[in-house]
Amino acid sequence: MSNTTGWLIFSLICGIASLILGLYLFFWVKKQDAGDEKAQEIAGWIHGGARAYLKKLYTALIIVATIMAVILAVVYTLDGSGRGIQTAVCYLIGALCSSMAGYLGMEVAVRANVRSATAASRDLSTAFNVAFRGGAVMGFAVVGIATIGMSAIYLITNQSQLVLAFSLGASSLALLAKAGGGIYTKTADIAADLVGKVEVGIPEDDPRNPAVVADNVGDNVGDVAGMGADIFDSYVASAVAAMLLGAAMGEPHYTILPLLLCALGIVASIIGVAMVRVGNDGKPGKSLNMGTFITCGAFAALMAIAILLVPQIDNNFIWAILVGTAVGVIIGQTTEFFTSDEYSPVKLTAEYSGSGAAITIISGMSYGLISIVPSIIGIVIAMLISFFVCGGMGNFPMGIYGVGISAVGMLAVSGMIVSADAYGPIVDNARGIAEMSGMDEEVIDRSDILDSAGNTAKAITKGFAIAAAALTVLALFAAFVSEVNLALAPVGKAFNFEDASLLNPLILAGIFLGAMCPPLFSALTMNSVTKNAFAMIEEIRRQFREEPGIMKGTVRPDYNRCISMAASGALTSLIVPAIIAIIFPLIVGFVMGPKGLTGFLGGSIITGVIFALFMSNAGGLWDNSKKYIESGQFGGKGSEAHKAAVIGDTVGDPFKDTAGPSLNTLITVMSLVASTFAPVIALYHLIP
Amino acid sequence: MSNTTGWLIFSLICGIASLILGLYLFFWVKKQDAGDEKAQEIAGWIHGGARAYLKKLYTALIIVATIMAVILAVVYTLDGSGRGIQTAVCYLIGALCSSMAGYLGMEVAVRANVRSATAASRDLSTAFNVAFRGGAVMGFAVVGIATIGMSAIYLITNQSQLVLAFSLGASSLALLAKAGGGIYTKTADIAADLVGKVEVGIPEDDPRNPAVVADNVGDNVGDVAGMGADIFDSYVASAVAAMLLGAAMGEPHYTILPLLLCALGIVASIIGVAMVRVGNDGKPGKSLNMGTFITCGAFAALMAIAILLVPQIDNNFIWAILVGTAVGVIIGQTTEFFTSDEYSPVKLTAEYSGSGAAITIISGMSYGLISIVPSIIGIVIAMLISFFVCGGMGNFPMGIYGVGISAVGMLAVSGMIVSADAYGPIVDNARGIAEMSGMDEEVIDRSDILDSAGNTAKAITKGFAIAAAALTVLALFAAFVSEVNLALAPVGKAFNFEDASLLNPLILAGIFLGAMCPPLFSALTMNSVTKNAFAMIEEIRRQFREEPGIMKGTVRPDYNRCISMAASGALTSLIVPAIIAIIFPLIVGFVMGPKGLTGFLGGSIITGVIFALFMSNAGGLWDNSKKYIESGQFGGKGSEAHKAAVIGDTVGDPFKDTAGPSLNTLITVMSLVASTFAPVIALYHLIP
Repeated sequence: MSNTTGWLIFSLICGIASLILGLYLFFWVKKQDAGDEKAQEIAGWIHGGARAYLKKLYTALIIVATIMAVILAVVYTLDGSGRGIQTAVCYLIGALCSSMAGYLGMEVAVRANVRSATAASRDLSTAFNVAFRGGAVMGFAVVGIATIGMSAIYLITNQSQLVLAFSLGASSLALLAKAGGGIYTKTADIAADLVGKVEVGIPEDDPRNPAVVADNVGDNVGDVAGMGADIFDSYVASAVAAMLLGAAMGEPHYTILPLLLCALGIVASIIGVAMVRVGNDGKPGKSLNMGTFITCGAFAALMAIAILLVPQIDNNFIWAILVGTAVGVIIGQTTEFFTSDEYSPVKLTAEYSGSGAAITIISGMSYGLISIVPSIIGIVIAMLISFFVCGGMGNFPMGIYGVGISAVGMLAVSGMIVSADAYGPIVDNARGIAEMSGMDEEVIDRSDILDSAGNTAKAITKGFAIAAAALTVLALFAAFVSEVNLALAPVGKAFNFEDASLLNPLILAGIFLGAMCPPLFSALTMNSVTKNAFAMIEEIRRQFREEPGIMKGTVRPDYNRCISMAASGALTSLIVPAIIAIIFPLIVGFVMGPKGLTGFLGGSIITGVIFALFMSNAGGLWDNSKKYIESGQFGGKGSEAHKAAVIGDTVGDPFKDTAGPSLNTLITVMSLVASTFAPVIALYHLIP
Repeated sequence: MSNTTGWLIFSLICGIASLILGLYLFFWVKKQDAGDEKAQEIAGWIHGGARAYLKKLYTALIIVATIMAVILAVVYTLDGSGRGIQTAVCYLIGALCSSMAGYLGMEVAVRANVRSATAASRDLSTAFNVAFRGGAVMGFAVVGIATIGMSAIYLITNQSQLVLAFSLGASSLALLAKAGGGIYTKTADIAADLVGKVEVGIPEDDPRNPAVVADNVGDNVGDVAGMGADIFDSYVASAVAAMLLGAAMGEPHYTILPLLLCALGIVASIIGVAMVRVGNDGKPGKSLNMGTFITCGAFAALMAIAILLVPQIDNNFIWAILVGTAVGVIIGQTTEFFTSDEYSPVKLTAEYSGSGAAITIISGMSYGLISIVPSIIGIVIAMLISFFVCGGMGNFPMGIYGVGISAVGMLAVSGMIVSADAYGPIVDNARGIAEMSGMDEEVIDRSDILDSAGNTAKAITKGFAIAAAALTVLALFAAFVSEVNLALAPVGKAFNFEDASLLNPLILAGIFLGAMCPPLFSALTMNSVTKNAFAMIEEIRRQFREEPGIMKGTVRPDYNRCISMAASGALTSLIVPAIIAIIFPLIVGFVMGPKGLTGFLGGSIITGVIFALFMSNAGGLWDNSKKYIESGQFGGKGSEAHKAAVIGDTVGDPFKDTAGPSLNTLITVMSLVASTFAPVIALYHLIP
């Protein structure tokens, strides 16, 4: 058995261990006390709503995946490479695996919420445990299934191009799940708030609100299923980009190193998750952070030992991986500066809110735009250090591989990151259930503590996800070029440095067109939120108007209508954005050739990262400005400043939960589409 | 006398003719009836406020210009090129010429306003004539002085690098005038509206409002002096970029062709301006558009004849120039689609406003982001057509020169464009004076008709200015590379296609850093508006509180305090943005070398164009959504929808009048700084 086969088997085993641990935690959560009848009934509604959405989502996925699979099968049969069927099958396996991870995450989330709420009536510690372990099911399912899929495909076929097809399959789901979930959750959230809180004056999570269940379902479909699919996607894409670059160098150890790092990351995540615990007087936010730090430390140690032990891998890669992990942490911290109420951006925006909503918006937008600066400098530093340390211009392929491996280093700890992140919507839901089923004030207070820790974890994950996606897409960009070169080699051509020159108007044209896509994509998803929310607002008003018993609390509102509106609205809104993500790169590629497409990918990365950072951070800032005022500053709840801050928060909702985070997925999907079709585009295109 | 000297003398003569015509119109406007004492007193306040601002602006300019001149003199003496003093002098002449054009424009604007208001008490036609001829003073001064400056410098020195220094001088003023004016005007506008209209409920332009004069001064400093300096800057920069590219090819005819086109554009503008007239029942907007179309047509005809007559110039350049002009017009039209109340974006945003300000903002942002699509496709088409028609990859320098000349073609008609644009703030002011001095309702109605035509002209100019800047900066980008090559030739090196490859992490790092600058710059200017407006709001409230006579109309408020706050606030806020524009490219250049700086410029163009289009169009859309509701739709004035739309409009103010339009200037300044310092950076930088 060769060295590399041993590595593959090791990562397969780690993947299986991760999945088994996830399943164990799933049954552990299921065994916990599901609470009284009232709470169970409410949880049942949320569960039913989530299932109804997932059913529609998977139907949409089946349509998209079937079309893509047929295209892949046809294209890679016609081109004579003879791997048409294999490519289509691996693509479908990718879509299926990603769906499985999302499904498992949702199924546990909609059970852990009510169980966490019930446990909160006893003590904080158990309530935290139930929620965090529920989140960990998702965390371990994502990294486990992804690692199993990649290792198994490579072990059987020995072709990194087929792992690429697997990755594209996972991305197809991620695109639908992330953008669809984002539209769903904010449609319901905005509509529920605008009519419930503002117009009729009932509190958050009041069961009289016809959209309250849809709102709670939204937390699950957006934050659990969506984020899970997103990280699954980035995780696989970063590994496959590095694998392709390694394979292009013809070095089997470098081809498989990404999978080894995934395996070590799983071990580190298991250690980190095991260390997360919180006493009854403890601080859950601190515990989650501690878990992340321990995971990063354990991963760094394991990775360094592994690389030092393997003579075939240059020791300099340790630095590339460390810098990736460090930059991820630093970007998370700067996100904190722009979105936490301990620093001036949030405080000043809250203060300015006294002069009206317009100033709140302008101020938040300004800080959101400024917030891109440290993250971009961080990404640039990570890219340059990993490039120059691993090879530089003297050994260019190795240098670029260094950038790719740095992204893998960042994402290897995803098991812990997803666990902490999926914890957020579970406790958010737990709070909703506690409120709706009329639990004690003490229980709601405990849920609030758990919830606020979830918000912080969520903000950090977002910064992390964007930074990781940026490095991943840079590696994918290089992988695309190396795929083009592999295809051109047999016909005696090559795609050289000069072919990607900024001085070439074709490249510049590609950059402009690519740069246009992320803003357009985010605009379309935000526009869908406005349109769908506007329709749902009419529906909620109609229910209150036609059935006065709802307001009195004697008649149960028609939750299902809002749930079904949110689901169909979100999924039909996805058609145009999905076309942009999949069809645009193909049009540019087949018309403008590899040059145009290289520019296109480059342009999309730039604005994709900028808009993702801007929108996520501005949204977080407005959210916390509102909360800061609600904590009693500048007039507190009900003041003019508060009204203005609520408007800011509502604008921020689709920024931070719909448009911003979907952009990671968009740029990953576009890059994967480009790489997958690179062999064909390299040979057949219109403009020479 | 050689052919090319003849061209130079011809453009010098056209420039002088343009300036003389401008001066003639200046004295014509001055001769018109200046109205009654009350109106004159008010106009006097505005005039005084504008002068006070200009004084501060020019003081700031003297500081910046002195520092830059010293640096240029030292650098180009030390590098042995022996043109240190010449470079510094040409730089200072550029700053001086641009200031002169702006000064003349302001001096006539603050006279034309009261004269147009007075004429409006007689008839619409005369009122229009006074305002439009006032605007034409600016139009002819800008193109006249610019053409004189460029032709004279080249005639005397025969060095396009010295014309580049002239251009950088003009840009230095443009940066201060445009961003400073934008901050000034929106600080005063927002503060006056928020306290005046919203808090104490007095109408627009009410003389009891302490910020009313500052608001009217703001229209002049932002829209007259700022826009004039901006177009002066783009106009000169586009010509100089093409001149540098022509000189690099060693072809004197191509070097001077841009100046010949400027001269023909002046002739065409004179024809166009002469044709603009409006009857007493006529539509001023239509006349302005007609003037623009006639100018474009006349220019196209003159240019085609000239090129056909000159054997040394390839006839294909006719197409490059035509496509530039056509795309400019088309972009103006699509701007219309997104910002006019005749189409769905404005109508839907107005309708959604019924659900609250948050939805107004999200909807406007979405459409603003979508609005970049047609303009970017237009820019890409103009770039590719002019490149491939003139030379393509087979004759690369000629192809790139084609892109440059296409930008010159777009901007050659600036005489007419600026005339129509400067008309806007004059009639806006006229309306203010009519209101403040208590003229008849009929007069105010006539002013309203004139004002609304001004708004349309302004929107079209903005689209035009952004598109022109985009093509100009693309040409400057190529000019930068050719300057680097000129400097490297003596040491036997060259900057090749492959040195600007997107695959090089150094280039990518440069792109990321460059792309970060426009959003950062716009954030800083918007942030200044919030901060300054917040301070001015406190001041207005203080005046109302401490002197109850102001509200009764018995005591005149302290206008000067608001004027002086707006002026010093705007200019001190400029320090950081100016550093970004001038120092950032130098840091990137001296650290990362020509490669890093090439990427940096490329990145800044991409996001500069995207953010400029997005912000200008979103701002215009909100403005017109509010006006659409005020015209009686969706509840009309005072409705909930109207309140939401007012918030949208206020957010849009700094978008469309501060941050968006300053970005043209930012990317032009950064490119000019890069080109000017290219010879030194090419030889001395840190990373090899």
